[in-house]
Amino acid sequence: MRSFASDNYAPAHPDVLQSMVAVNQDHDRAYGADSVTQKLEIKIKEVFGKAAQIFPVWNGTGANVVALQAMLRPWEAVICTSQAHINVDEGGAPERIIGTKLIDLPTPNAKLTPAQVNQAFIRDGDEHYAQPRVVSITQSTEYGTVYSVSEIAELAEVTHKHNAFLHLDGARISNAAVALNVPFAEFTTKCGVDVISFGGTKNGLISGEAVIFLNSKLTDNIKHIRKTLMQLNSKMRYSSAQLLAFLENDLWKRNALNANKMAQLLATEVAQVPGIKITQTVEVNSVFAIVPQSVITRVIPQFPFYVWDERTNEVRWMCSWDTTQEDVMAFVAAIKAAVN
Amino acid sequence: MRSFASDNYAPAHPDVLQSMVAVNQDHDRAYGADSVTQKLEIKIKEVFGKAAQIFPVWNGTGANVVALQAMLRPWEAVICTSQAHINVDEGGAPERIIGTKLIDLPTPNAKLTPAQVNQAFIRDGDEHYAQPRVVSITQSTEYGTVYSVSEIAELAEVTHKHNAFLHLDGARISNAAVALNVPFAEFTTKCGVDVISFGGTKNGLISGEAVIFLNSKLTDNIKHIRKTLMQLNSKMRYSSAQLLAFLENDLWKRNALNANKMAQLLATEVAQVPGIKITQTVEVNSVFAIVPQSVITRVIPQFPFYVWDERTNEVRWMCSWDTTQEDVMAFVAAIKAAVN
Amino acid sequence: MRSFASDNYAPAHPDVLQSMVAVNQDHDRAYGADSVTQKLEIKIKEVFGKAAQIFPVWNGTGANVVALQAMLRPWEAVICTSQAHINVDEGGAPERIIGTKLIDLPTPNAKLTPAQVNQAFIRDGDEHYAQPRVVSITQSTEYGTVYSVSEIAELAEVTHKHNAFLHLDGARISNAAVALNVPFAEFTTKCGVDVISFGGTKNGLISGEAVIFLNSKLTDNIKHIRKTLMQLNSKMRYSSAQLLAFLENDLWKRNALNANKMAQLLATEVAQVPGIKITQTVEVNSVFAIVPQSVITRVIPQFPFYVWDERTNEVRWMCSWDTTQEDVMAFVAAIKAAVN
Amino acid sequence: MRSFASDNYAPAHPDVLQSMVAVNQDHDRAYGADSVTQKLEIKIKEVFGKAAQIFPVWNGTGANVVALQAMLRPWEAVICTSQAHINVDEGGAPERIIGTKLIDLPTPNAKLTPAQVNQAFIRDGDEHYAQPRVVSITQSTEYGTVYSVSEIAELAEVTHKHNAFLHLDGARISNAAVALNVPFAEFTTKCGVDVISFGGTKNGLISGEAVIFLNSKLTDNIKHIRKTLMQLNSKMRYSSAQLLAFLENDLWKRNALNANKMAQLLATEVAQVPGIKITQTVEVNSVFAIVPQSVITRVIPQFPFYVWDERTNEVRWMCSWDTTQEDVMAFVAAIKAAVN
Repeated sequence: MRSFASDNYAPAHPDVLQSMVAVNQDHDRAYGADSVTQKLEIKIKEVFGKAAQIFPVWNGTGANVVALQAMLRPWEAVICTSQAHINVDEGGAPERIIGTKLIDLPTPNAKLTPAQVNQAFIRDGDEHYAQPRVVSITQSTEYGTVYSVSEIAELAEVTHKHNAFLHLDGARISNAAVALNVPFAEFTTKCGVDVISFGGTKNGLISGEAVIFLNSKLTDNIKHIRKTLMQLNSKMRYSSAQLLAFLENDLWKRNALNANKMAQLLATEVAQVPGIKITQTVEVNSVFAIVPQSVITRVIPQFPFYVWDERTNEVRWMCSWDTTQEDVMAFVAAIKAAVN
Repeated sequence: MRSFASDNYAPAHPDVLQSMVAVNQDHDRAYGADSVTQKLEIKIKEVFGKAAQIFPVWNGTGANVVALQAMLRPWEAVICTSQAHINVDEGGAPERIIGTKLIDLPTPNAKLTPAQVNQAFIRDGDEHYAQPRVVSITQSTEYGTVYSVSEIAELAEVTHKHNAFLHLDGARISNAAVALNVPFAEFTTKCGVDVISFGGTKNGLISGEAVIFLNSKLTDNIKHIRKTLMQLNSKMRYSSAQLLAFLENDLWKRNALNANKMAQLLATEVAQVPGIKITQTVEVNSVFAIVPQSVITRVIPQFPFYVWDERTNEVRWMCSWDTTQEDVMAFVAAIKAAVN
Repeated sequence: MRSFASDNYAPAHPDVLQSMVAVNQDHDRAYGADSVTQKLEIKIKEVFGKAAQIFPVWNGTGANVVALQAMLRPWEAVICTSQAHINVDEGGAPERIIGTKLIDLPTPNAKLTPAQVNQAFIRDGDEHYAQPRVVSITQSTEYGTVYSVSEIAELAEVTHKHNAFLHLDGARISNAAVALNVPFAEFTTKCGVDVISFGGTKNGLISGEAVIFLNSKLTDNIKHIRKTLMQLNSKMRYSSAQLLAFLENDLWKRNALNANKMAQLLATEVAQVPGIKITQTVEVNSVFAIVPQSVITRVIPQFPFYVWDERTNEVRWMCSWDTTQEDVMAFVAAIKAAVN
Repeated sequence: MRSFASDNYAPAHPDVLQSMVAVNQDHDRAYGADSVTQKLEIKIKEVFGKAAQIFPVWNGTGANVVALQAMLRPWEAVICTSQAHINVDEGGAPERIIGTKLIDLPTPNAKLTPAQVNQAFIRDGDEHYAQPRVVSITQSTEYGTVYSVSEIAELAEVTHKHNAFLHLDGARISNAAVALNVPFAEFTTKCGVDVISFGGTKNGLISGEAVIFLNSKLTDNIKHIRKTLMQLNSKMRYSSAQLLAFLENDLWKRNALNANKMAQLLATEVAQVPGIKITQTVEVNSVFAIVPQSVITRVIPQFPFYVWDERTNEVRWMCSWDTTQEDVMAFVAAIKAAVN
């Protein structure tokens, strides 16, 4: 199968499996006390700065919920966009697991603005109102858009002004870094982001997600939190090996570069197809478009993809680290055939 | 003090205290097995129909959370308005206690429309999306507006079509009944409402709130739910006495009639004051208005009231069962003085 | 009905209702900002010391859960006895609402010993083990026994040594104070108790429960906690009036003295009845006894009481503020008749 | 490093990694709709019977919590042993995540008896008591003991008599099957077990845990539960591949046979060492023993293992699929040296 459904339909990069084979010998300590995780901890400080601490978890939902739990007390709330993955694609896990309230703000492009965030901090200290304590942004966003470095710095500033924390859901952080053409730290550590949900699974790993703390005041209880939220991997060396492989030799960058480039190619090709309207700026590895019903009906069986909004026939086409030019051209051909 | 802040700044009606004194003799069973609660259970069937069952709880937040818990499984969600009390004035209790997600829809007047509700039932069966199972409306609403009988019937229809339950937050249900000039059952039982948060505290009781089930399939576990949600009153006879006093001799109606009438008087008077703009139709006992800052600054110390939206200077003026014509005229005079 | 089932089968003391009538005039602020609650706040400092702060709640379950929430983070645990009310009579509310683990220790008399508590602090910092952070004792206990002043002081010492907090469930704190013949502060504030669930409902109030903080470091977020745990009374003046009436004029003491005295009378009388074995030292207002089945079968219909352990026919007989000598003697006569 | 600390200090079996490499090609559906998971679903019916359904999750804590959530309503409780992993080694996750109460019963050997379970079903329908709805046993147990087939059948019978469900925590289910020398279904499906936490991670997998439902009435909402409890693997094919490799070619059996055999060897050897007392029957891959302090101090740095009870110097020595006769003899030599 070739698909444009999701970057987690793709297989893992062969180097990733190789990294797991490489650590598959002898006994090593469980629950993160192993030698591979120690190397990862050092590597993460190189990449994100000396204060950075990494805690591998199982998946993106786990990363987000663990990260939020580390910042929130039980009566506090999270400001996010209406399109945020934590708001519409975690099955309600943040509310269910932490009991937090999500204050979701409407946006045209899945990006919060500093003014919007500033205005959302209301009723400070009022016991009748869930108190906002975290602002959560997604980079790159659920609509394939990207916050600029200065946009994130401004969001951090307004967030901290209100004595709150800035969380960055980085399920596709590599695609954003490639789009911005800067190192990870440039739009996270240096901007004042407090905690990152760092994702590799959508960019060539098998299961490589982690919470990275840039604000070292937030880690006191993180091991208890990770354990009780069922996100502690006993044989962590295999997760850490994947994350190390991702960061070493720029595997993350090579993978994301290809995915982003293929989305550009796809967007360029379909832009010319009559009846198809691209709805979001294509900045990373996804293309959002409103399409004729026939495209949905006829193309999905051959090249699976998701309908994003059933009410408008908006679809999402997602490219992966392994999407080839041939894949794209075959997909475009199928779309054209369906339109006609 | 005389105030227009909230109907729970008002004292209790003397008959209510008298009803408590009347049951204050001898031993009686605890936790709702008492003779007074039994009378209340019979009374509620007279008022709401034979299938109706009442379970007194402590307060409005408790009533709402117990009611929602009875309808929801841990991964399900509630559709409500953005202005809903459960969304902005429970401190996040529904999320915190039940772990449910609130899907809050924007409205101009705190009223959901059937079309809006219909459209909110998306992604049925999708594990990634918190599944809507309850539609919650407030009658009368947080903006002092009232759903008509047919509007509620239509909402029940669309809700049930999606295999969901209709909850009615009736913190001010008496004011709505008086405004509609129909018995309670007319806009609840007969329309297909499943569960009511029935409120008396804002209309002359000391603490008289209850969950009333009109859908008898939902009560199987209600006693366990009420207990574990800390809403079980050991000496329940004193709560039930209040609710009985409320329903007998039309105390609820007399109280609400006065409160609504005083709000009409207030609205009529302030409508003529320059610089004051009434923002919502006055249907029950509240008046919402945008006022000059001077009104906020100068009048509140004398007659407390709440600023509803700090960003627009919209205020809420609330009349009570005990608000007098003299109170209103003195308040209007203070407003006029502040404007000038 | 006259009963020996529970001290909350009893009515309220007439002075309590009178105190509610007395505050039932004019408007007053809601949610605890009222003048009556302010008086209560001052009174509580007189009784429990200058650092003491009181927060009225609805009921005993609410008091316990709010108190525990103020001391616990989401991965922490509570050490208590196996017989503790929080362990066996809250329907699982502490686990359900706070998500805490109860580490329940077996005891013969519902009293923890310092050695037992000391030994329960294991695996400090181990993420795989719910970390004990609270020791909760009940005074007087669920078995009608009483901790001495020095026992509580020693428990506080060992608790604080492990960087934990001492909670005292005082649902029947008045009965304990009377049994010890000391003021409340003597076995709470002066011993190092951190938080009290202060109960009046079982001793003549309608609903008079509160959380009292003696450790002022624990109150930062208490208002958010009380609200989101659905324990905030909008018209709090009526709760505070009851608690004030309780503390003023020694109403609490007079009520508890009678209840305790009647239990002594009852114990003395039944001790002579063949086939009845008193199982716990009678220190407050309850008598625990193993009785012939005939006593259970024949006496309960006339004088309701609870079977404590169905497996052994152990029963609990509870006296109240309003139990009279005649009640006791009639009850004893019924027991004797049933035995024969 | 060679260790006797835990079977998850061991690496994965090479066949397991090979199975992951084998499925690492082309796109496949995410979230369990992939072709590998479909094969696993068929395989599991072969092994556990036609009604069996498998849902892979991340880890053992996740398996247990997901399994329990599928059986419990929010006010219900779980009966288990005091030594149960869910009780003492999940960091309190079941309470924290589901809000359930664990009713933990003391046992000498980590095995519940039918009589003990029968007696724990008390206060049926009593809203003040968390209602037992699940009995959870561990097979093999935390003390390395094994329930016989008839013991499990009897436990299922008594559990079902009380309208409850039987859960089997099978973190080391392979070691039990080998010890009993019967197929998995013999002591699960055929005995009436309702749900299994099926574990492979401790027996040669990287991360291979799953919930297996034998009672098909319990799976209606399992996908929502797994997702909201953060246990849904997007690229599930890699988990399913491991579980398939485990079940095909009897890898589970070969691995467990070795681990069990090595524990027997170890037990036989240390039984002769003066000062060492084996405390539990050695039935699977662990040896529990009380040892002189010198063994703890001197051997752990060379061959890591866990102290099970600091108060008695009881230790746990765990053998793995990859433990060799040489490992055991070297370990025994180190112990002997430490003793002398």
